[in-house]
Amino acid sequence: MKSDIQIAQEAKMEHILKIAEKIGLSEDDIEMYGKNKCKISLDVLEKNKDKKDGKLILVTAINPTPAGEGKSTVTVGLGQALCKLGKKASIALREPSLGPVFGIKGGAAGGGYAQVVPMEDINLHFTGDMHAITAANNLLCAAIDNHIHQGNELGLDSRRITFKRVIDMNDRALRQVVVGMGGKINGFLREDGFMITVASEIMAILCLANSLEDLKERIGNIVIGYKLNGDPAYAKEIGVVGAMAMLMKDAIMPNLVQTLENTPAIIHGGPFANIAHGCNSILGTKMALKLSDIVVTEAGFGADLGAEKFLNIKCRYGNLNPDCVVIVATIRALKHHGGSSKDELNIPNVETLSKGISNLEKQIENIKKFGVPVVVAINKFVSDSEEEIAFIKDFCEKNNVKVALSDVWAKGGEGGIDLANEVIEILENEKSNFKVLYSEKDSIKQKILKIAKEIYGANSVDYDQVALKQINELEKFNLDKLPICMAKTQYSLSDNPNLLGKPSDFNIKVKEVKVSNGAGFIVVLTGNVMTMPGLPKVPAANKMDILENGNIVGLF
Amino acid sequence: MKSDIQIAQEAKMEHILKIAEKIGLSEDDIEMYGKNKCKISLDVLEKNKDKKDGKLILVTAINPTPAGEGKSTVTVGLGQALCKLGKKASIALREPSLGPVFGIKGGAAGGGYAQVVPMEDINLHFTGDMHAITAANNLLCAAIDNHIHQGNELGLDSRRITFKRVIDMNDRALRQVVVGMGGKINGFLREDGFMITVASEIMAILCLANSLEDLKERIGNIVIGYKLNGDPAYAKEIGVVGAMAMLMKDAIMPNLVQTLENTPAIIHGGPFANIAHGCNSILGTKMALKLSDIVVTEAGFGADLGAEKFLNIKCRYGNLNPDCVVIVATIRALKHHGGSSKDELNIPNVETLSKGISNLEKQIENIKKFGVPVVVAINKFVSDSEEEIAFIKDFCEKNNVKVALSDVWAKGGEGGIDLANEVIEILENEKSNFKVLYSEKDSIKQKILKIAKEIYGANSVDYDQVALKQINELEKFNLDKLPICMAKTQYSLSDNPNLLGKPSDFNIKVKEVKVSNGAGFIVVLTGNVMTMPGLPKVPAANKMDILENGNIVGLF
Repeated sequence: MKSDIQIAQEAKMEHILKIAEKIGLSEDDIEMYGKNKCKISLDVLEKNKDKKDGKLILVTAINPTPAGEGKSTVTVGLGQALCKLGKKASIALREPSLGPVFGIKGGAAGGGYAQVVPMEDINLHFTGDMHAITAANNLLCAAIDNHIHQGNELGLDSRRITFKRVIDMNDRALRQVVVGMGGKINGFLREDGFMITVASEIMAILCLANSLEDLKERIGNIVIGYKLNGDPAYAKEIGVVGAMAMLMKDAIMPNLVQTLENTPAIIHGGPFANIAHGCNSILGTKMALKLSDIVVTEAGFGADLGAEKFLNIKCRYGNLNPDCVVIVATIRALKHHGGSSKDELNIPNVETLSKGISNLEKQIENIKKFGVPVVVAINKFVSDSEEEIAFIKDFCEKNNVKVALSDVWAKGGEGGIDLANEVIEILENEKSNFKVLYSEKDSIKQKILKIAKEIYGANSVDYDQVALKQINELEKFNLDKLPICMAKTQYSLSDNPNLLGKPSDFNIKVKEVKVSNGAGFIVVLTGNVMTMPGLPKVPAANKMDILENGNIVGLF
Repeated sequence: MKSDIQIAQEAKMEHILKIAEKIGLSEDDIEMYGKNKCKISLDVLEKNKDKKDGKLILVTAINPTPAGEGKSTVTVGLGQALCKLGKKASIALREPSLGPVFGIKGGAAGGGYAQVVPMEDINLHFTGDMHAITAANNLLCAAIDNHIHQGNELGLDSRRITFKRVIDMNDRALRQVVVGMGGKINGFLREDGFMITVASEIMAILCLANSLEDLKERIGNIVIGYKLNGDPAYAKEIGVVGAMAMLMKDAIMPNLVQTLENTPAIIHGGPFANIAHGCNSILGTKMALKLSDIVVTEAGFGADLGAEKFLNIKCRYGNLNPDCVVIVATIRALKHHGGSSKDELNIPNVETLSKGISNLEKQIENIKKFGVPVVVAINKFVSDSEEEIAFIKDFCEKNNVKVALSDVWAKGGEGGIDLANEVIEILENEKSNFKVLYSEKDSIKQKILKIAKEIYGANSVDYDQVALKQINELEKFNLDKLPICMAKTQYSLSDNPNLLGKPSDFNIKVKEVKVSNGAGFIVVLTGNVMTMPGLPKVPAANKMDILENGNIVGLF
């Protein structure tokens, strides 16, 4: 069997100019980065502002399990299948971060015969967006410490600087650091820490901005920490917002590449799915909607986190109206939700499947609360039995939900034809009545309770003392009228990763509440979130190399 | 008067494909980065390996003063002038770092009507080389701390890790830090520090490598620190050399842009001129030599540091044979060397000029020791008097050295015609007998003494105890057979920045001796070198912005 990178390296890529032409772009609309990547000028949005948007499909999933679901692979494969059926379709994805590439994960650009290419470039520096975000983030940090060093006119409280430096690397030694050692010439000593770049609020802002002006305004609104008098301090007070936006002048333009089957793929932005909203950029999605009739996109983690935030945060700020949601599940994963251990997943077992399907059932129910039609995609594995497949199909029929098998990993677009047909059927015959779940004007507690009850199925929400204090503070400073960004375990509908299937009779426990005022959401933490991963004992990097002929090995 | 960025934004750039064609490159030889920048494939060197190299001109200067010398401007202007005279000329420069851009300096790509463009891109992320170096450097650092955390099989001494993390930003708070705080999951606590990216040994390696294989070998040879048993530890023992080289697969390719007059400009690499050798890459220079008849390049600081290292380090490793050296001086700067205060520089004063000219005299004498013909370029200022100009011309005539006025800042290539003609005269009629000053096989002390006596004019060299201990250690580990990279004040021929002109009767005091075994030189420190700059009270960043129409302001 070929590895992902082997398949990717054998891809017959079309020149990126040809891909651009497919979606109506001329050479003047793009900036080429080599022969296989380009950036799309934001002028294209303005030029097409009167053109009707295409249809928007979100691909999400059940709660992830160690069995793997293949959400990105289905997203890419569905785009390929729609094109095979003659549709003018494109996909809109997130950019991978270097950290996980060198850690455990290897590459991240779909899998098998449903990948985006050039895989090596996308997984390495791509067009430099991550580096631009890192630089903008760290310019602000350097300017903050410089401000304190040069007299601290603003009266910043060096004990309460919340805006952290970032680096696009898995580096646990930087999680907690002391900076400014060495005496007066090196500034004031303080505790600090680095996050991985995708956790930067600048990344979330890039993904939620609707224009360059919007980007600048959001950067200015970042709460960087607090002053000695207790007031919040904003990035705009530091004076480098213009320089930060200048550093992001190219990063704000969506990137265009292609799939293995030459389907246009717009890849732009990639924020964390816990402390941020986990979706590709609004500008990337809007660009794709202007340039194609159908756009397939995805959100991070399972539907309780990823789709909820896509719908309540991204669609709210981008004024987007999704037309259909695809929920990806595997029979193996559903059996895991129903009690099968990791070793038993290859053994047919309708009993555990019938228990575990409650997770899928709840995710379907949740999406319907947003008024958007649903299709279930069963991502096929060789171990799936006929009986198990029949059981799921039967379940979906009874629940009045469309379902299709997907075999895009092994067969590319051809393996996604059934799924594509179900999606097309919905786009042609069902109307989406999308609405967000809550008003951002509700109180913080009202908004959290709504998500916890309606989406997670919790009885109620408990708050730690510190969280209550933080909520009071945000209300006092009028920083509370923003949508909620839940940071919760991805493995369960509850906040306990061990409660699989569809847990009931539980409360959500809120430990901390923080504002990302620039991005425009309130982060609600129900547990510890690691914003700087570490490397494993044998990092994936140890197997990687570039040969004398320029070929890359070990990236997957 | 127009600012540099105004002039740059009004430039009539040719499409980069046209610039590439001028030097015989086809679309297949390059990777485009937008319409105005590209990278040149290393295959071009292989394809042209039997072609004769062009002539190589080094532009250097007297010891810098607060008056400014304009070395980069002369380099760019000379290239423009040579093209105006019908020569197939190109220039080969260093890449600027983001740190100084946001600090005091603003942009760095020549000045006035002798600039390289697109100025904004070159000064910001350019083609991502700095970011790739940063990532490769920090991957090694993360892997080192991970190795210690995961059991420390190599027995690394966490108190003696010498390879530091880098960031391309002026950030004094990161000069000295403690990493690994927060207990077991965050690794072992140790003292560390960040340097600015241009100080990274990876940068020096990129600039001294002759091929991808050479790059990998040099990275592997980096001494990252020492083991608990006292032995040096090498990067190759950590296991991520292949991944680091992979991260640099694009960075190793030289970048092509153009001057305001469409002269091809290859810009690649930019190491510090104190703890490193301060020249653009060997690959960039070699590429330019294969593709043009005359190549104009420059080295950092004054000739005692920059040219000495260019000739003894870069030319040695690149097997390069410079044909002519241009020494840039200004009348203002020479008067400063002769005792005029900063306020008096605009007042004609042949007396201080006649004293200060000793600095130029010594630099000429030094270059002649390498066997390379010299031209003096007087970079014109409005304050220069006829009498002063006559004095210098007379001095050069008596010393049998060619001299020409340069007015490229105000007039572009047109202002460099006289200088270009003098250079052409040398190329056509004088033979260079270039030889390095010492054998790398000499002892460390012999090599240092040779540079101190012959180049600086010192009586002798004194060593601090710690330096002697370090020299013993390098000899013990057989790490001493490398050329010397002096880290000395740039403002004086001596190691005392206050001794201007041509100091005499002094000793050089060596404080520390370190090896950059991957880059392939021994760094000899005669004072404290700041490898992480700080931001000033009002950083240049505070004036920068990007307007709604995409125009950048305040970059200069």
